[in-house]
Amino acid sequence: MEKLKLMSLYADFRKDLSFIEKELEQSIDSSSPVIRQASLLLLRAGGKRIRPIFVILSSQFGEYSMENVAKVAVSLELIHMASLVHDDVIDDSDFRRGFETVKARWNNRIAMYAGDYIFSRALVSIGEIEMPAVHQLLAETMLEICKGEIIQIEYQQQTNQSFRDYLRRIKRKTALLLSSSCELGALVSNATPETVGKLKRFGYFAGMAFQIVDDILDITSTDEQLGKPAGSDLLNGHLTLPTLYIKDDPEFQPFLLRSFDGSLTEEERGLMLTYIRKSGAIEKAQQVSNMYLKKAIAEVESLPDGEAKRALLQIAAFLGKRKF
Amino acid sequence: MEKLKLMSLYADFRKDLSFIEKELEQSIDSSSPVIRQASLLLLRAGGKRIRPIFVILSSQFGEYSMENVAKVAVSLELIHMASLVHDDVIDDSDFRRGFETVKARWNNRIAMYAGDYIFSRALVSIGEIEMPAVHQLLAETMLEICKGEIIQIEYQQQTNQSFRDYLRRIKRKTALLLSSSCELGALVSNATPETVGKLKRFGYFAGMAFQIVDDILDITSTDEQLGKPAGSDLLNGHLTLPTLYIKDDPEFQPFLLRSFDGSLTEEERGLMLTYIRKSGAIEKAQQVSNMYLKKAIAEVESLPDGEAKRALLQIAAFLGKRKF
Repeated sequence: MEKLKLMSLYADFRKDLSFIEKELEQSIDSSSPVIRQASLLLLRAGGKRIRPIFVILSSQFGEYSMENVAKVAVSLELIHMASLVHDDVIDDSDFRRGFETVKARWNNRIAMYAGDYIFSRALVSIGEIEMPAVHQLLAETMLEICKGEIIQIEYQQQTNQSFRDYLRRIKRKTALLLSSSCELGALVSNATPETVGKLKRFGYFAGMAFQIVDDILDITSTDEQLGKPAGSDLLNGHLTLPTLYIKDDPEFQPFLLRSFDGSLTEEERGLMLTYIRKSGAIEKAQQVSNMYLKKAIAEVESLPDGEAKRALLQIAAFLGKRKF
Repeated sequence: MEKLKLMSLYADFRKDLSFIEKELEQSIDSSSPVIRQASLLLLRAGGKRIRPIFVILSSQFGEYSMENVAKVAVSLELIHMASLVHDDVIDDSDFRRGFETVKARWNNRIAMYAGDYIFSRALVSIGEIEMPAVHQLLAETMLEICKGEIIQIEYQQQTNQSFRDYLRRIKRKTALLLSSSCELGALVSNATPETVGKLKRFGYFAGMAFQIVDDILDITSTDEQLGKPAGSDLLNGHLTLPTLYIKDDPEFQPFLLRSFDGSLTEEERGLMLTYIRKSGAIEKAQQVSNMYLKKAIAEVESLPDGEAKRALLQIAAFLGKRKF
């Protein structure tokens, strides 16, 4: 359904994507049964493969070499997967997109080391590319992402935070890796510095919009659609954009505090979600997301016409409207 | 005391080492108080800085450039530190060398992410070196180490394992990173392939001996010397070389099984340690360690004479006799 719609955006690049999918499967092949099973579980749970598609599309604006592009794409998707495994350790989540998580099936220790392993695999994949700038960019990106993960814990259950804190957090959590996906795809194809810059900013703005929509969906979707309880962000102690708008609202505050201290009942969770949905906060958050999408689109518009540009614009439009 | 003796081996390279120590401190400086404090705690807990010293000494057999050597040395020590933080999550250890661990002071989540962060810092440090072979070697090394960490869990509490299983495990746990420290130090200084090979093997053999001695000390030292209970390896479900020799001994078996299932009393722990110490297993393990040390020394003997060669030989001799 929704997923199929997204795939149709990828139609022109289906062959490239399935090549990368195969490389991904190969790269996590291991003689250790635990590693192999854990990685396959993750791979099958799928996801939208947005990082690989951003790498592929950005590479089209330079001298396209599928071999190098695949190495970068595989590496970035593996880093994303590794961070999901580590996130599962963090959030005590037993399901992700309806699939059992690595952590639930084995335990926190295995999940941590499986994440480390997948992460090392990513380095091996990108290690074959002999461009120092690529390694430096990847290392800097990962450093910022890791910083973000710790900062996210520092802010957990803190009600005293600003919009700026939130934006900085989602930049590190999501936008940076998407931005670097575009930048690396363009870099590795020797695109001009100007083009690299535009694609990098496209990825950043699209990533900010993507995460804001994610945070909205955590409130507006059903448990079934999410594969986890709606409102999980709050239950896990994270204030997101919609809830930041109403965090000082006296009618919302009791919900917020009970979410954070773990005493919210199932009935109260339903009431809380309805309250947020009707508060106007969702619409405000949607506007911020739309603003980022507009910025993303503006970066791409001046690039040369073609299939890649069309696909980037369609993805941007899609990210704003997605319902999953 | 013992530590001072080791430092005296480093005397000729003290300036280089203190330069690296400063770079290490700078590299973990962060605006996040949790990251900064966690990393500083680790840094202060110290350790023997064997990886940096191996990098420095190996670099002396090529065209020595302190700037590059320091980047490699800092990177390898950070990787070692990151793996210690992740090990603490695993072993539920609250103290390491008598210092509170990152995990105990904060929690498992923070420890995992602090490890990830320090690890990314390592990549940033080495990322500045524009030699593809360096990045490939580091990535492959880390992949093997991560594999080893998962395999170590797979073998946990398994009594049915061979000497080969043990040797493969300590190779990944310790010898590989020491081997790569030597190899990278030589590579980054453009030493000849023959010299690179000798140093790489020296690091590997010395690393095997080092870990075997570590595993012996876990049995022969006092709780105070170790900063954790003697026999911790067994209590954590790990069979090491000395205990492999007697694992099927009917008098030892009850100790082994009770260590693994967590029912060993403090009194029994004392009896068990005495039993192992008197069994002859320690001496057999010591012989294997000595065999590796001889191999390590043989690799270095054909290298050109000088301060670096002398220091490598002294370190090898020291590793065999160390009491901490």
